[in-house]
Amino acid sequence: MKSVKTMIAEALAAGQNTLSEYDSKRILTEYGIPATREFLTEDFADVEQAADRIGYPVALKACAAAAQHKTEMGLIELGVKDAVELKRAYDRLAPKARDLGGGILVQEMIAGSRELVMGLIRDPQFGPCVMFGLGGIFTEALGDVSFRVAPLNDQDARSMPSEIQGSKILGNMRAMAPVQTDHLSRCLRQLGQIGLDHPAISEIDVNPLIVRNGLPVAVDALVVLQTPEPQAAEEAAVSGNLDILFEPQSVAVIGASGTPHKAGNDVIKNILANDFGGKLYLVNPKGGEILGHQVYPSIQDLPDGIDLAIIILPASATPQAIRDCAAKGAKAIVMAASGFAEVDEQGQKLQQETIQAIRETGVRAIGPNTSGHTSTPHNFTSSFFPLGKIPRGKVSYIAQTGNFATHTMRYIMTGEHFGVARVLGMGNKLDVEESEVLEYYGRDPETEAIFIYLESFKRPRRFLEVARQVTRSKPVILLKGGSTAQGSRAAVAHTAALASDDRIIDGALRQAGVVRVHDYSHLILAAKGISAMPLPRGNRVSFSAPSGAMLVCMTDLCHRRWGLQVPKFEEKTRRYLQDISPPYIRIRNPVDIWPAATATGVEYAYREGTEAVLKDDNIDAVVMILMITEETGVPSMDFIVELAQRYPEKPLYVTFSGQKKHEVKLWGVDVCPEVLGPMALTPVSRMA
Amino acid sequence: MKSVKTMIAEALAAGQNTLSEYDSKRILTEYGIPATREFLTEDFADVEQAADRIGYPVALKACAAAAQHKTEMGLIELGVKDAVELKRAYDRLAPKARDLGGGILVQEMIAGSRELVMGLIRDPQFGPCVMFGLGGIFTEALGDVSFRVAPLNDQDARSMPSEIQGSKILGNMRAMAPVQTDHLSRCLRQLGQIGLDHPAISEIDVNPLIVRNGLPVAVDALVVLQTPEPQAAEEAAVSGNLDILFEPQSVAVIGASGTPHKAGNDVIKNILANDFGGKLYLVNPKGGEILGHQVYPSIQDLPDGIDLAIIILPASATPQAIRDCAAKGAKAIVMAASGFAEVDEQGQKLQQETIQAIRETGVRAIGPNTSGHTSTPHNFTSSFFPLGKIPRGKVSYIAQTGNFATHTMRYIMTGEHFGVARVLGMGNKLDVEESEVLEYYGRDPETEAIFIYLESFKRPRRFLEVARQVTRSKPVILLKGGSTAQGSRAAVAHTAALASDDRIIDGALRQAGVVRVHDYSHLILAAKGISAMPLPRGNRVSFSAPSGAMLVCMTDLCHRRWGLQVPKFEEKTRRYLQDISPPYIRIRNPVDIWPAATATGVEYAYREGTEAVLKDDNIDAVVMILMITEETGVPSMDFIVELAQRYPEKPLYVTFSGQKKHEVKLWGVDVCPEVLGPMALTPVSRMA
Repeated sequence: MKSVKTMIAEALAAGQNTLSEYDSKRILTEYGIPATREFLTEDFADVEQAADRIGYPVALKACAAAAQHKTEMGLIELGVKDAVELKRAYDRLAPKARDLGGGILVQEMIAGSRELVMGLIRDPQFGPCVMFGLGGIFTEALGDVSFRVAPLNDQDARSMPSEIQGSKILGNMRAMAPVQTDHLSRCLRQLGQIGLDHPAISEIDVNPLIVRNGLPVAVDALVVLQTPEPQAAEEAAVSGNLDILFEPQSVAVIGASGTPHKAGNDVIKNILANDFGGKLYLVNPKGGEILGHQVYPSIQDLPDGIDLAIIILPASATPQAIRDCAAKGAKAIVMAASGFAEVDEQGQKLQQETIQAIRETGVRAIGPNTSGHTSTPHNFTSSFFPLGKIPRGKVSYIAQTGNFATHTMRYIMTGEHFGVARVLGMGNKLDVEESEVLEYYGRDPETEAIFIYLESFKRPRRFLEVARQVTRSKPVILLKGGSTAQGSRAAVAHTAALASDDRIIDGALRQAGVVRVHDYSHLILAAKGISAMPLPRGNRVSFSAPSGAMLVCMTDLCHRRWGLQVPKFEEKTRRYLQDISPPYIRIRNPVDIWPAATATGVEYAYREGTEAVLKDDNIDAVVMILMITEETGVPSMDFIVELAQRYPEKPLYVTFSGQKKHEVKLWGVDVCPEVLGPMALTPVSRMA
Repeated sequence: MKSVKTMIAEALAAGQNTLSEYDSKRILTEYGIPATREFLTEDFADVEQAADRIGYPVALKACAAAAQHKTEMGLIELGVKDAVELKRAYDRLAPKARDLGGGILVQEMIAGSRELVMGLIRDPQFGPCVMFGLGGIFTEALGDVSFRVAPLNDQDARSMPSEIQGSKILGNMRAMAPVQTDHLSRCLRQLGQIGLDHPAISEIDVNPLIVRNGLPVAVDALVVLQTPEPQAAEEAAVSGNLDILFEPQSVAVIGASGTPHKAGNDVIKNILANDFGGKLYLVNPKGGEILGHQVYPSIQDLPDGIDLAIIILPASATPQAIRDCAAKGAKAIVMAASGFAEVDEQGQKLQQETIQAIRETGVRAIGPNTSGHTSTPHNFTSSFFPLGKIPRGKVSYIAQTGNFATHTMRYIMTGEHFGVARVLGMGNKLDVEESEVLEYYGRDPETEAIFIYLESFKRPRRFLEVARQVTRSKPVILLKGGSTAQGSRAAVAHTAALASDDRIIDGALRQAGVVRVHDYSHLILAAKGISAMPLPRGNRVSFSAPSGAMLVCMTDLCHRRWGLQVPKFEEKTRRYLQDISPPYIRIRNPVDIWPAATATGVEYAYREGTEAVLKDDNIDAVVMILMITEETGVPSMDFIVELAQRYPEKPLYVTFSGQKKHEVKLWGVDVCPEVLGPMALTPVSRMA
């Protein structure tokens, strides 16, 4: 038998861009994926012999590389029951097969009403990806499919079927045997392996994949070929040490300015406001002094041994400045200017020159078109947006936008009141990019959770590889901007038609353990939650509120939208809550706290009630919904902070309804009462 | 031929709870729903004759009332191709059919790979409901179905297929003829008619409904019977005039109190604060004076001709107080007390007595367990929660919760700054209920949009009927609390298994033109939007923001979540925006406004840019995302209000990012800059 490689090479040499069904399935079976039992025949004697060996009923198909859309083209005869029918079917098909330059395929009939699909595509970002979903006409009609990037490990493959909406079809249904998971996941992994082994295969469709006695069997298959181009392989990953970026001992600002509100001035103020402990050098042709610091007239005049240079010069001056700084020993560069490839052709040329300068000098560089980076454990920032002292915290950001070093950081500081560990605005990503930074944050003891805003992946496969490692120990939350921009691609096979950018990214991120969000505000509010509270151990929550309607709505949303449970309390909890409530209210989870508050006072009821729930082993996270009005009393909020401190393993969130005027102090910061909305929840800080 | 009624009556008399496939289909065809051509036979001679008349291939099925799950039970022989096969198939089936007490059904084979389902159930709330969706095993696996309440009009029926996720299957697909919409919708309407005509039919499953040449054909059907109980028909709708409730000329507070913070005191303060123009009488056994008003010692002492009485007494005193007030001429009653059926058995008894008192006296009553109602055009409220002067507006609320007369109203007044026309907290709905209030609001010239929070429907079918009328002229937005509480019901047929409370309500509300929301906060924020802005004429929006990332995320959410378009500008708009922007930025929708703001100033760029977009005929609504920081300048917001006033036909929304400290005055009220979130959008008021 020919090897798969030979088969593909010969087909390409013959100018084919697809393989016949028979050849396509030979590749599958070579990789252990079961296909229908079948024989490729040349004349009726062959056909008869094949049918006898398989046993009736059989299917006959015209088989040729060009034989696609066989149903629509009348190239299939199904359910042929005996020799008489066989002859008739043969007589109908044989001329068509001859015209296509192929033979007749005699195939066993597979009984099974569950039609699935699996497929392979070569994604421009992530390379070979495997698809699984509902087959037959439902592949097109529902698009109920799931993707993974190859290679798939066992868990990747096993999780695919459970992700499709029609997954119930795979279970024990209408007395049909459930699909054997081991078997199916092995097929999916092997399909990925084919993609990895054979760059000349651009797509595979296995549709339908029919389940017989719990085992999936490929009933039809199509392999699409391409002349494998010398793959523009992902640039080799850089895994340098980014310490020099985040913990420089000496910093030079090239383009320092004495004029307030100019970037070259604000960056100095930021560095000073953050109490940077290293040496700070300023460069400006005018010389003199800025903010009490000596100004050097040129880079050449600087002392040797600069760790990091922040270049705030016009774009055109950037390449030379890099070379000059490197000559003074700079190992890291922040390139602030915009006006590169994001703008026009001239900018593109300039960008090439800049890349050249970075490569020649071996510096590590962020930007250009970055608004800077921040490293609070090192009391340092290169941001040139006026931020002042940036509070230290335990979440870190990677952002393909300047926002997190500019006005979003301002909003975080003034509106949400949490701190950050590291922040890096990537700009045009000429050198340092997301996968390397993610790797650094993964190892960084100062970073406990990582938030990412990305519009493109510079090294997609490397990113996944790193993320897979990092998510084992730290949550990684990502917003991919522009996810709906890229539609489905032009496609020969169904798999490709369904492989929109967005579906592939969904699959890839799940595979890597990354949590995907779609709201910009969630990058801020989830970070706030994680900053102040432990992660819950599970998805079982309890609420208390002064209003039945709020409890009802929250419970609905838990079930309907968030996949959270609102379970029963332990009996001791229920009894305690019942004891502090008037007898007419029947206590359960969630808790209608108002009767108790009326009977025993707002603070007592919320404090005692919440403490009982915090002790309950059935509950992983607790939310207090407080109503604040003058008339019902504005309690001191200290008891909430005390509760959070006393139960540090369990997250406690609080939100407010009622009068807006009554601002509440929690950890020394004004908190406006907000209408019920889970993303407006205020995590109770232990720092209070 | 027997009539349908006779067929059902005989089956019930024989103790059947289902009809055979043959009989089930006879009912369908009687109503013009096409079914397979078929003959019910008694012996093989019959079978042969039937097969000859139909033409091979045929299907044979055992046919009996008890023959359900025919595939699983081996009661079907498909694709019988000739007389020889027919005999074999007959021999296999005949004994089974005999055992079941039925015959053999000889049926034409329907070629078609699109299997659909339609069905009927009798919902405890809404009565007969029709289902449509994907058939075969996908009915169970995907639950991709849509419901409507019978009777269906043409539009109801036509909209069902487009609501299912797999609707693409009905179009022109794989060279199959598209499903004929007229035909399909007629079948769905007729199925509903069967349910209306025959109360003894509890469920119908038509599964599969196969599409042949674009026409749906019932291939299998099951009618489930019930002994029709004397239906607890929906209580007759009351359509009284509620003017007396919302526009009373004289009001008595029964249980008036001189003690601050008691309900009987707060209600008086509210009435006075709202400048009620009618007469106000107070009743308390102690007599004397409260807040400068004479207090009558008893209801009997009141003058005659009271329009409305607010009874703030213990639950047990309510029935007698109703009678006493009615004797003084009161035509409307607000029953504030709780402690009725929502509490215990004694409360239930009390509730019965209260109903009795209402019926005997003929008063119109809201509550008990209500926190009151509000009518700002009449300067009146019966709320006993301290609210002060309630601002007048053009949205009205119906709430099965006290919140909208208590702390949520406080939040609206202090945090969101819009007014209301009418608000009614329904409490236990002993008399006045949602459908009657909705009808009143529908006719009310003071009400331009209606927001409803409901946990149950008192008169479900009446509610839909009224809503269908009202939504023709006013938007109705509803949150149904407790929607996930009630799961699927125990069911004989698939239709019933899929008919969860929530799906039925989804269908019913769509049918009535009601917009369903699931977030409590949307009842407030959408009302704020509608209060201040016109409704957009279409779904085409434009944004401007100071950040590419925000524009990208908003565009994604528009497409992915909200079904909004972000279309191209007219050329004149694009050119104008390009002219005020630096040349390096390529202007399109959404608008990156920051380059223009940097070049020409924040206020100029936003004002000129927004005005150009407001003039664009491709755009139905405009959103400005402003960044506020000291350094970039805090513009006067007057230009935004002016723009809104100059283009009163097009909604203009504004939201903020940046520094939280910088509160912004819009129409005289502080607006906190908020992080980007569409529900936090501030509609620019014309009232400024």
